[in-house]
This record gives sequence, structure tokens and C-alpha cells, in this order.
Amino acid sequence: MSGLLDIPEIRGLDGASGLVRIPPELDVPLTPRVRLILDSAEFRRLARISQLGLVSMVYPAANHTRFEHALGVYRLALLVLRRLADDPRFSSEVGPEDAELFILAALLHDLGHWPFCHPIEDIRLPGVPTHELFANSFLLEGEIADTLRDEWAVQPREVVDLLSGKPLSPSWRILQSLLSGPVDIDKMDYLMRDSLHAGVPYGRHFDQSRLIRNLCLNEEGTSLAITDKGKTAAEMMVFARYVMFSEVYWHHGVRSATAMLQRAFTMLVGGLDLDVLFRMSESAWISEVTAAAGDSPAGELLDGLFGSVRQLYKRVWQCSFYEHRSVYRELAGRPFPWLAACAEHMAALASTQLSRVVAPHEILIDAPPVEKEVEFNLPVYCIRDDRFRMLGEISPVVKILAQKQFDDYVKRVRIFAHPRLARDLRAGGRCGALVSEAIQRCG
Amino acid sequence: MSGLLDIPEIRGLDGASGLVRIPPELDVPLTPRVRLILDSAEFRRLARISQLGLVSMVYPAANHTRFEHALGVYRLALLVLRRLADDPRFSSEVGPEDAELFILAALLHDLGHWPFCHPIEDIRLPGVPTHELFANSFLLEGEIADTLRDEWAVQPREVVDLLSGKPLSPSWRILQSLLSGPVDIDKMDYLMRDSLHAGVPYGRHFDQSRLIRNLCLNEEGTSLAITDKGKTAAEMMVFARYVMFSEVYWHHGVRSATAMLQRAFTMLVGGLDLDVLFRMSESAWISEVTAAAGDSPAGELLDGLFGSVRQLYKRVWQCSFYEHRSVYRELAGRPFPWLAACAEHMAALASTQLSRVVAPHEILIDAPPVEKEVEFNLPVYCIRDDRFRMLGEISPVVKILAQKQFDDYVKRVRIFAHPRLARDLRAGGRCGALVSEAIQRCG
Amino acid sequence: MSGLLDIPEIRGLDGASGLVRIPPELDVPLTPRVRLILDSAEFRRLARISQLGLVSMVYPAANHTRFEHALGVYRLALLVLRRLADDPRFSSEVGPEDAELFILAALLHDLGHWPFCHPIEDIRLPGVPTHELFANSFLLEGEIADTLRDEWAVQPREVVDLLSGKPLSPSWRILQSLLSGPVDIDKMDYLMRDSLHAGVPYGRHFDQSRLIRNLCLNEEGTSLAITDKGKTAAEMMVFARYVMFSEVYWHHGVRSATAMLQRAFTMLVGGLDLDVLFRMSESAWISEVTAAAGDSPAGELLDGLFGSVRQLYKRVWQCSFYEHRSVYRELAGRPFPWLAACAEHMAALASTQLSRVVAPHEILIDAPPVEKEVEFNLPVYCIRDDRFRMLGEISPVVKILAQKQFDDYVKRVRIFAHPRLARDLRAGGRCGALVSEAIQRCG
Amino acid sequence: MSGLLDIPEIRGLDGASGLVRIPPELDVPLTPRVRLILDSAEFRRLARISQLGLVSMVYPAANHTRFEHALGVYRLALLVLRRLADDPRFSSEVGPEDAELFILAALLHDLGHWPFCHPIEDIRLPGVPTHELFANSFLLEGEIADTLRDEWAVQPREVVDLLSGKPLSPSWRILQSLLSGPVDIDKMDYLMRDSLHAGVPYGRHFDQSRLIRNLCLNEEGTSLAITDKGKTAAEMMVFARYVMFSEVYWHHGVRSATAMLQRAFTMLVGGLDLDVLFRMSESAWISEVTAAAGDSPAGELLDGLFGSVRQLYKRVWQCSFYEHRSVYRELAGRPFPWLAACAEHMAALASTQLSRVVAPHEILIDAPPVEKEVEFNLPVYCIRDDRFRMLGEISPVVKILAQKQFDDYVKRVRIFAHPRLARDLRAGGRCGALVSEAIQRCG
Repeated sequence: MSGLLDIPEIRGLDGASGLVRIPPELDVPLTPRVRLILDSAEFRRLARISQLGLVSMVYPAANHTRFEHALGVYRLALLVLRRLADDPRFSSEVGPEDAELFILAALLHDLGHWPFCHPIEDIRLPGVPTHELFANSFLLEGEIADTLRDEWAVQPREVVDLLSGKPLSPSWRILQSLLSGPVDIDKMDYLMRDSLHAGVPYGRHFDQSRLIRNLCLNEEGTSLAITDKGKTAAEMMVFARYVMFSEVYWHHGVRSATAMLQRAFTMLVGGLDLDVLFRMSESAWISEVTAAAGDSPAGELLDGLFGSVRQLYKRVWQCSFYEHRSVYRELAGRPFPWLAACAEHMAALASTQLSRVVAPHEILIDAPPVEKEVEFNLPVYCIRDDRFRMLGEISPVVKILAQKQFDDYVKRVRIFAHPRLARDLRAGGRCGALVSEAIQRCG
Repeated sequence: MSGLLDIPEIRGLDGASGLVRIPPELDVPLTPRVRLILDSAEFRRLARISQLGLVSMVYPAANHTRFEHALGVYRLALLVLRRLADDPRFSSEVGPEDAELFILAALLHDLGHWPFCHPIEDIRLPGVPTHELFANSFLLEGEIADTLRDEWAVQPREVVDLLSGKPLSPSWRILQSLLSGPVDIDKMDYLMRDSLHAGVPYGRHFDQSRLIRNLCLNEEGTSLAITDKGKTAAEMMVFARYVMFSEVYWHHGVRSATAMLQRAFTMLVGGLDLDVLFRMSESAWISEVTAAAGDSPAGELLDGLFGSVRQLYKRVWQCSFYEHRSVYRELAGRPFPWLAACAEHMAALASTQLSRVVAPHEILIDAPPVEKEVEFNLPVYCIRDDRFRMLGEISPVVKILAQKQFDDYVKRVRIFAHPRLARDLRAGGRCGALVSEAIQRCG
Repeated sequence: MSGLLDIPEIRGLDGASGLVRIPPELDVPLTPRVRLILDSAEFRRLARISQLGLVSMVYPAANHTRFEHALGVYRLALLVLRRLADDPRFSSEVGPEDAELFILAALLHDLGHWPFCHPIEDIRLPGVPTHELFANSFLLEGEIADTLRDEWAVQPREVVDLLSGKPLSPSWRILQSLLSGPVDIDKMDYLMRDSLHAGVPYGRHFDQSRLIRNLCLNEEGTSLAITDKGKTAAEMMVFARYVMFSEVYWHHGVRSATAMLQRAFTMLVGGLDLDVLFRMSESAWISEVTAAAGDSPAGELLDGLFGSVRQLYKRVWQCSFYEHRSVYRELAGRPFPWLAACAEHMAALASTQLSRVVAPHEILIDAPPVEKEVEFNLPVYCIRDDRFRMLGEISPVVKILAQKQFDDYVKRVRIFAHPRLARDLRAGGRCGALVSEAIQRCG
Repeated sequence: MSGLLDIPEIRGLDGASGLVRIPPELDVPLTPRVRLILDSAEFRRLARISQLGLVSMVYPAANHTRFEHALGVYRLALLVLRRLADDPRFSSEVGPEDAELFILAALLHDLGHWPFCHPIEDIRLPGVPTHELFANSFLLEGEIADTLRDEWAVQPREVVDLLSGKPLSPSWRILQSLLSGPVDIDKMDYLMRDSLHAGVPYGRHFDQSRLIRNLCLNEEGTSLAITDKGKTAAEMMVFARYVMFSEVYWHHGVRSATAMLQRAFTMLVGGLDLDVLFRMSESAWISEVTAAAGDSPAGELLDGLFGSVRQLYKRVWQCSFYEHRSVYRELAGRPFPWLAACAEHMAALASTQLSRVVAPHEILIDAPPVEKEVEFNLPVYCIRDDRFRMLGEISPVVKILAQKQFDDYVKRVRIFAHPRLARDLRAGGRCGALVSEAIQRCG
């Protein structure tokens, strides 16, 4: 066990020197070799990219950065290692070298994020890399790569491999399940941090310390699990995530802004040098894209988001899985170009009906992406009868959230329109018919 | 609207004078006529009865009193009235007189509680009054009755009637739904307060202010409802209640203590003067009952709870609706005397199997009571399409909690036994067979 | 360093098994040998004695117990040891045996407290033991003594000696400074815990984690100090303590109740068997003392505190060091019998002036006790120039709190009187003259 | 009283519609006429200017915006008005029109802030306007001016006058004391908000609700005061402000960044179009100034702050009022150009001593500005004897903070140097002598 607890960053958890503070009143231990990474150009870049992007159009205080989040995840990595150092099944498999790699992966997991990364990835445009792939360029060369080699005795390629999910060894498989899975340290931090800065209680109170305390390995010893003492905390985290999606990430105002950005970006992407663009800070990104758009329709859309006056498109209609199920099924999971075309058909139909010019980009359709949220399942170790069961099996509430409520209830299909059209489009339940007709035209 | 806002206690919400502080940093406004009630003998009695009784055997800091809770509910009554004063459908129905009655009902709703009231009511012994009935003796005569008449110009009988659910008028029906219903002010306070003193986050963070903000009336104007802006807060409160039951109210240690008290009380009840006993403070109650028990088996059980050394019975077996369903169904909802008899059969069988004396009271069966928790349904006013829907209909998570997870998953059937028997009874899965056989014998 | 971190209770800080929860959402690690102490008769007794006694007359939620506080201090002992294990000057001096002794001392430091211990000790009646002495009887014989010997391999006498301040070794001197000193773990817990349960923010936010992080040893290596990174946290704790005295511990209502109890107890003490009385739970103590008082004047005083109706004496006059300095100096620090006599003179004088019977016990004088609060000084290690300075020297705010504001400003002299006298005594500034005349008569 | 409570924004405090959330879980009521202001270009600009500027170099999460702070102050204005509506001395003086003006002033008080406004104002360069003056251009013309006239029936000039402190009437004098004074709503918000986002407890727990509850008018009825029930809360706020200065605003790392920016800006100011620059967002401001600096020494300084790699100058020496008093007095309050010249002398002297090139901008002197922090005095209304006293008179701790600890202890004189020089300059106590000599040369 001692090996893990001797890692300097873990020892720093209780120490007096080298700390940086982040909310909510957390001390993050810094060693010289961590500080070198934080002060590097590649990492400083994260201080200029907001964690939640367009969410701040609705929650104006949600301006926290990926830099802050990275510190939070890094600290959780230390806490989780300190906890699991005590578990012989873990510590016999994961040695100090792999643990240090894990600490680095936690710190660097978002290095490839560019401004508004998630909405752009969601529309799956050809030529747009994933942020994971994009991260490699920052990791494999430059200052951080040097620091990894010189100060950590780590090959940059190893961090890339661990992050990209290559399960070269049982130890790595375990560590990857801590980085990405139903109760990973990434979610543990962002649910809490996004809540805190947005000013909402939703994602902050899932009893994180109890969750961490009760982490263990699954039956095979290959992946994360929890003991039944942590079951309720796991349920709380699943529920917290549901509420955050419902009230923050998929808030209709946030989705309106997202749909505006996605539509504008699609119009512009052909003329943009993505490799340059995605290396920029958020404000430079905005300047660059806005300049590229000029007075075009894309420029009009971007102006409502980033111009001097805030002007979001209005929600004129929405449907969910439990109401208007057939329309919902027609639209959910469709490719973005199809949705854009369908929205243009709607605009054309509306022009006719309203006897006024409705520009093609004045109506937007927002629908759940193909990719569903990960199912929230996790082995639970029941101490009393020494058996593992799946969380969904012993928790109906998790099962229902995983299967029904999450993607189908939270992620609605919505039609947004330019404010000047909103009243007319809402009138007389016109929108439902327009959508149906447009879908038919699109085939 | 002005009438309601002129009630002195409501004006006191922002005022500077006459305040008392309760956690979490809440100021409760006191007027002279409220102070007279607080300082009366009948109300001071609540300062000597703990809110959670035996829960402090497991959560040692949960020693808060019914007095504190009553202040909390009273304050919520003021907040809710201030909020709904703004709703013309409410304020046209509920005038200042009824509002003052409601404030009194909130303050006095627990006046009839005696020590360990809930566990004793749950076993439904003949001759035991409900605490609601018992409250009448405190309300209809004595100091509080005088204060109501002289300082509030209220007939004590009116408070009794409002609390007992007599719907004499539409106004009263509305107010009763605020006192007792899916999101009533009683639950809003106790979930939060019990969490706070127990030291757990579970029931504290359901966004109470948002819930209160979004209260409205149902379609018919006869009962409480919420707007869809408050839907998530209502879901959070339902979920919070589930977690509190799972981790606090039905914690296995708490249920062990409860089963011990229930069994002992059943043995003693014939010789106790309940009308005297139920007027006592908690410590006097304990002395009285302990003295009545003497060295009897009941005395042995009580000694583990209230004697100098803490000694709870151990959980030796448990089953839930989702595992061992047939046994669960045999035991859940059975009358307490039947369960006691069944446990005695188990003790006899165990004596034989273990070849040692197992006294009849050394094995206890704890099973969910007949009465199920209220289904958590509530009309939700959907602003966009001006329609009311039921919460369970638009929230699968509430539906599943109401129908399945709550009574069937949280409330387990458990067998508790004296510590000296625990190891032997747990060994070899013996308990399951013993339970089945005992059930058969009981018929 | 390893030795300290291998102590099972310290390892339990991150572990999954054996926890008990106390507010504010803290997990306290329990090992079997700690559990044996908690479940013993001597320790369970603390679960029936409130931490703040009469404070609950004013802050009705402040009903937390010495049991809860003891758990809190014990947990802080573990945190402090984990922190200082990293400091070579500490760990070279304090070995695992002494550290375990320290853990025990933290857990058991209040074992001798009896109900209303502080107000009774303050009046220094002959024949009343200190609670420290009284604790010895619980520590040196009985269940806990057995557990110490058998499960901890500790001689009970050693715990007594460490707690009583016998500096047998340098190691002990250091540990004693952690138990009792300007920033000891006792204060760290009670300031926070008293605030939390009273419902006030005052003593909760002094950045405890930063304080603990920055603990070190003084220049000589014989006692606790802090580094200058912790200086502000230390200032905050000093200030928090001032506010708690001002608003809670020396609140005028609390002092009225205290003066009533002190006067009643003084009248009764001759007829009480203190050795029996001081072993009782708080409720038994109250019954016993109330029964002894009967209908006497003492009984009348006690009835206002513990009877069915709350009736505190009213503050009719007060003075402080900065106003009425000469009267203040006449009364502050006087022996209690002198104050009682002086109050009786006042009652006699008031009888004459008001032309009505004023019983001798209907006027009470409350004045600061002889013993002043400890001066709040602490060595601060200034890292930049490798020098120790005293906190008061580099912090004017601490200096002023220590020297002036604390005893002289917070602790006022107050005259309390039975409510029926209050109006007449307050009228026309009569009280000031009465006090002066009574002082003269007492000589 | 009713007039004030009928203002729509105040009624919105309890209402259900038109809310925006900001931390810590606060609902800010928005009416259509407030929303028009928030969505205007002039106000949106505040969403792109951080509240704390360079503080985020040390507290990386402190990225909150002036937009968020403005919402917080606006909400406090509503709370304060609702509270004081109940005070006849206030409500007889301040009518609804003035109250609405006050609400607007609260919302718009920071409209003239430009990026890094405070550090730049502190150096008092000729040609730099105050941000108050600068605000006028935004208030008197443009969108907001139109909204004020059309939707609020308010002349923009009135808001300007109220904010600029023109006491045209007794009512205005009162309102101005709420906007700017010892316990104004600006400080109440920023202390709390800056703490929250920085992740520190220091400025968040001064019992704001109690402070607001106990606001009243001074003896003459011309300005804000508090009752003695609020005295402790006022002391806590004074102390909180001290701690925030000590640990955040005047943290040595923050001051290093500040000194770097001030020196660079001074070098560049001649070539900048301030009227254009000060209208920019923070990121545009940085781009503009950085571009103007190019490869000059100013560019080098800016690169450490805003370039890809974070590189702050190191503190090589410091002195305070209580140590090195004579040097302190030589430097504190000096004009910035004098300090810059002195630092250049130091650089020249260091070049010689160290026998290496030390560029003139590689050493910076940071010293307290001329302007002292406002003395923290406030009338306190003592209810018991119906008298007003000054806070400093009855609170030694406030007096000492106001007079000594604040400017003299918190605001140190510091020498910062380029990291490459730090070790050599720190060695052998060389710096103290260098400073003294440089001072002599400057005369």
C-alpha cells in the first residue's frame, strides 16, 4: 500500500505547501512538476475556454473554465487513489507508476477541448476531429511533453494511450473505468462545479465523500464498482445528473443558443481552418468565426449570441417522447444536415402561410443526437451476502432513469424561431402541422 | 392581496424585532401573541420531545426537538402565504382569518405528539389514541386555548377542525392541502431539518425556495398544485424523501431499536396509564416505562436502548420485495401481534436447532406496516399549453418511486436477534428456513 | 513518519468501514476499540448531557450533546496527527504510543462534565470538584479503564495525567498544547458545532482546514505554533470566538438563565449529594435539584427555567467597561456570595422605593467571573525570514481582542429581575442608583 | 409603506415569473423593463469584463463578471427597500420614484467599468477618466437611456446624478449612503461573491440577512445606520473586508500581477486611444494593449500576464508599517511615476552589484496608493437607552481595523523582480539596502 501513498501529489493532500484554491473551498496540492504543467502554454489555454460555453446565456454566472475543472478532476484522482490504496485488490494491481499516469491523465483529460467543443462534435461534420484526437497534438509535442519526460519520467504516448482507452493491461482497465464510467471523477467534478457556478443546488449534493469511500473493484477485479454502503450515493449521483440535464444542460434557452451556433457553424465550416481555430482561446475563436461570417445569415445568428445585444431564438414548439411520440421519433437521432433541411422546409412553408418572408435560417430544429447518454450501470458489492448485483437491478429509480427518463424525457425536440416570428408561429397551434408537413417533404 | 400581507407574523418576515434563530441560519419572526403560545406549558412540552426518537441510536447528533420543527413549519406557513398572496385564485378564496388559522395550525400541528409516537402508533394497539386526537386535549383547554381566544380571536375548536381535515369550506380544503399532501410544509421542514441534524445531505437540497415560488392551485381551485417551473423541484423532494427513508428513517439500526421498543411496549401496555404517560417529557416517559418493566423481558429490551450501555439487536436476516418476494409478502403488512407470535415461534425453533435457550423476546421480526406511504402525486400546471397534468404522468421517476421503490424496496422485512445469538443464527443461511417454518406455524 | 499513519483510527479517515456521521456531514471513523468506549456506560452518559445547557433557553435548537462534541474533537485529533506526521520535528518527538494516548485524551476530555458544569464551576462553591478531577473517577475504574488496558494497552492513569497537564515529557507538552491552547482542537470543534446547532454563522467559518494544514511547532519545538500562511485563519478563529461569546455564550438571555441557576444552586448546595448528582443525566439532574428545591425561593427560580412555562428574569440594567466603568470595576470579578448579598441589598432597597414586597431572590446580579478568558497568543513562524513572532505582535486585531474587547466589552455586568418587577425597576433610570447604593452597603 | 412594496421588481422577490439565477442559489427577479436593460449593448459589455481582473492569476476560479455582480447589487437593493419600507422614517422620506431610481442606480453602478479599471485608476495617470465619469457616456445616450425614459419614466441624468453623489434632496442622501458607505450594498455583494468564486470562506459569512434586518436611519434621518442588534453583523462585515484584502485583493501574487500591468500600461498609455480602449471587452482590451506593446519591455511584462505561459514577477522583499517603518513611510502613498523611477534606480544599482544586465522594468515597487480605504464608521442605534453611538466607539475591534490594521498592516510595500533575478536579489538581504539607496537617489 505504501507505494501509492508516497506519491508526492497524494502526500500533498494534507501538506502545507504548494496549494491552489478552487471553489467550494477546496485546496488543490501542487508539486513543482504539476506547476510546470499548469504554467505551460497548452494548459494555460484551458484558462481561456469556458467549461459550459453557451450555458452562460441562461445562467450568467456559469463562466468557469476548463482549467478549474481540470484542477478539480486532478484532486479527485488523488482522493480516489488515497482511498483505494487501502484496497488490496486495487493496490496489488495498480502500482505507483500507473497511479502517476492516472494522475496525469486526470489533469490532462480535457487538454484537447476547444471552445464550444460539445455542440460542434454533436453535429458530426466531416473533417472535424474529436477533441480526444485533437488533444494528442498538445500532448505529444511541446512543453508538456517535455515536462512529462523530464520531470515525471513518463512517455507522453502513455498518457495518450491511457486516455484513449487502450486497455493494455488490467491495471489500465481499472484506471480507465475511474476516468470514464458511471461514477467517474470527471462527472463527479463537473456536476458539482457546474451547479456551483450556475447557482443551483442540483448537482452538488450527491454525497461525494461517501461515494469515494465505498469504491471497490468489480467481481473480476477489472473495473470500478461500489459496495452497497455506497449504493444510495450512486443513486443520488445518477439523479443529480438527470436534474442537471433537465435544468441546465438541456434547458430550452441553452438549446436555443446551441441550435443557433450549430447552424451558423455548419454554414461556415467549409471556409474555416479548423486546426488553427481549435487552438484559439474562446474569445479569439468567437472573433475569428464572427469575422468569417460577416453579414451572412450565419453572421446574423452569431450576432444574437456574441454580438453586443443578446437575442436568442424563441421556442415556438416542443415535443417529447411521452407526448407527440410519433413526431419525436421522426426527428430524434436524425443527422444534423437532415434537420437543417427540414427546418428550411418549415421556413418555406411558414413564408407561404404567414405571407411574409421567412429566411431559411430563421427556423431551427433541435433534436437529441444519435448518441445516447451512457447507461448508468455499475456493479454493487453486497457485503452481507458477498455478492455482486447490478445497480439497475436493485434500484428501480436508476433503471427508469437509465432507460426512459433520461434521453426520452429530458431531451426534447424543439423548434426555435427568430423572435420576430415567434408570436405568429405559436398562434393557433400552427407549428405542429408545419413540422409534420416538413418531415414529409424531407422523406 | 393586501389583507394577507398585513398579518403581523408575515410582516415580521422582513422586520427587525422579535426573532428566534433556528438552523440553518433561519430567522423565525415572533409576535407577542406567538410568544405566548411558545412559552405555554403545552408547547414547552415539545421542547422535551425529540423529533426523531430512536434515530439518535444510529445518528447520534439527531437530537432536535419537536419544538424546533414546529417553529420551522410555522415559518414555512408564513412564506407560503406571502407567496400565494400574489395568486388571485388563492387570495380571493383565502382571507386573513383563515390565513391566521392556518398559521396557528402550522405552529400547533404536532402538539399531540408524545415520545416515540410514530413507532407506537404503527403497531396499532387497542386503547392507544392517535396523536391527532390526543392533541385536542391540549388545544381545547388550558393556556393555549385562552391565548387563541383572547389574543387571536380564534376559537380553539376551529384549529382542531382545520388540523383534523374537516373540509368545511373551499378555503379550508386548500389550506389543508398545504398542511398535509405531497409537498406540504411539514415534509418540507422535517426532511431538511432531520438531514441537517443527522449530518447527512440527503433531504436538504431539494430547492425549497423554487418549490414555494411555483406553488399554485389545481385546475378546480380546491387544492395545491405546482407550475411546471417547479416540477423538477417537486421531483427532487420526492427523491429526497426516498433517500431519507432509505438511509435514515428505515436504516437497519433504527429499525432494530424500533422493533425492540415496539415489542417491549406491547408487553407493558396493559399496565400503563397512557393518558398520563403520553403527557410526559421524553426523559420522564423513559423513566416511567423502564420502571414499569423492571427486570422483565421488556426491561431487558429497554435496557439495551435506554440503559447505561447501548446494545442493539443485530440484523441476522433480511428480505425485500425484489428478493425472497414470497416471504416478503407473507410478512409485510401483518398485524404486530401476529409478527410477535411468529417471532416467538422462531425463537422456539431456534432453541431446538441451536440446543440452547432462546428466550421468546430475543428474536424480533420487523416488517412494513399496513399503512403505505402516501402516493406522491400532484397536479402540475403546464404554462405553455395551459393544461394540468399529474406529476406521475410526466415524471417516470416519481411514478416508479411512488409505486415500486418506496414501500417495496426501502421497507425491508428484517429479523433482529440479541447479539449473543447473532453469529449462530447467521451461520449457514439458517434464518431463511426458520422464518419460513415459523410462518407456516402461524398460519 | 509511517508509525503515526499506521494507527488504525487514522487509517480509518479514508476507509470504508466503521463510520458514524455527525454534522456538518462529517464521517467519524470508528474502530472496534473505539466503539467499546462509545458504548460504555461512562461515555453514553455524555449522550444525555447537552453541550450548551441553558443556551437552549435562547437558541432553542442548541440541544447537541457532549457525546457529539467528543466525537468531533476525536476526529480533529486524527486530522491533526495526520497532518503533523509530515512534520519531522513533530514525528521525531511524538511516537505512535503517545499519539494513541492523545487520541484517547481527545475522545475522553469531557468525560467528567456534569449537567450545567460551567455555570456551577464559575461560582466556585466550596466542596464542588472541578470536572477534570471528577473525570478521574470515570477514567480510573469501570468499563473504560478495562477497555484502555485490554484493547489499547494503555494505563488509564496515563490518560488522566495527559489530560491534567502533567508535562512528563516534551512529547506530552506538545500534545497538551493541541488539547488546550489558543487554537486547540476542543475550541475548533465547539465553536463550529455550537454555531451549527444554534443556527448562527458566527463560529463556523474560520477556515479550519487551512489552520490545521499550517500547524507547526514553536521555535523550541515544545508547543504548537502556526506558519504565517495560517496567520489569517488564526485571526479568524480568535474573532469567531469573540463573536460567539458576544452573541451566544454571553447573550443577555443566556446570562439571565445562568444567574437564575447559579442563585438557586447556591441556596440548595448544602443539602445535595454532589457525588451522586454529578453522575446523573441532565434530565435526572433537573428532577433531583427541582425536587430538592420544592416550593422554596430556589424552586421558584428553577421553575422559570425547567418548569412547564418558560419565564426568564428580565434585564433591567447593564454596564460595561466602556460605560459606567467605575461601577463595572466594583462588580466584575467579585465572589459570587458577595454578588448575591449585594443583590439582596438591592431587593431590600427596591422594596422601600417601590413600596411593595421584593423578595431577596427577585433581583440578580450577573458579573464576569474572576477568571479571565485565556489570552490568545500563539507563535507564528514567518517562512520568508525564518523567524518566529507572536500573533499579537503582528496582528493588532488579535491584540485588541485579547486585551480589551474580550473580557471587558463582551462580558457585561447585568442586573436581572423577576418579570413582574421589570417595568418599575427600569423606570426613571432607578437601577443605576440602586446598584451604587447596594455596593456601598456591601462595602 | 404600500407604495414601495408595489414596485414590480420588489413584488417579484416572492413571485414566480421572470427570474435569473446567480450563485449562491439566489433568484434575481426580472421584469420586462429590467430585461431590456440587461439585454442592451452597454450592459452586455459587463458580461465580458471580469470582476476581479488579475486576481484570477492567483485564484484561478475567480472569473466572475461585473454583469453577475450588478445583478447581485440590484437584488440587494430590492431587499433593502423591502426591509426599510417598514421603517416610517425611511418611507416617509423616500417615495416610490426615488426608490425606482435607487434600483436603477444599483443595477447600473458599474456601467462605466473598463477592464482592469481599479489598478489603472490607482496610478492616476493624466488623461485617464474615472470610471464614474466614463459611465455617463453609456447612461446618457444609447439604448439604456431610451429604456430609462420610455419604460421607467426616468431621466437618465437623474441616475447619473444619484450615482455621482449629488445630494439634491434628503431622500437622495439616504439612498446614496446605501450605495456607498461602510455597509453599502456594493460591498455586501462583492465581498460575498468574490469569496464564493475564489473558493474562500473569508467574505461570505458576515450574517448579511441580520445586517439588512437591522438597518435604520441615523439620528438626523439623513443617512444609513444600524441598530445595536446589528452591531455584531457590522463588525463581522468590517472584519470580513479586512480578511479579503489580506488574503485576496492584496495577496502578494495579485499585487505582483498588478504592478506588472501598471508599469506596462504606464509605458503604453501615450499611444493608446483610451476612449476606444475602455469600451472594449476584456479579451479585446488585452489584444489591443498587447498589440500596442509589441516586443517592447511593456510587451515583455504583458506576456507574463496574458501570454501563453504564466510568469509572474517574484516577491524579493517586503516591508510593512510595523517592520521597517521608516522605509514604509518613504514609499507608501508616493505617486506612481516616482515609484517607477525609484525602481529603475534599483535596477541600475542591481546591475552594478550583480554584474549583469538588469533591465529597468525588471524590478517593480508596489506600494499602497495615496487614497486610503474609507474609515469604517457607522452610527449604531442603541435601543435600550435610545441613543446613537459610533461603531468605532463601542467596538475596539472596528476601531483598530479602521485605524491601524487596514492600510498599514494589510497593504505592504513590496519589491517584485523578474524570476531570473529573484534568487540573486533575495540573497544576503541585499534588497533592503538597494531600496534605501534608490530612495535616497530619488530624493
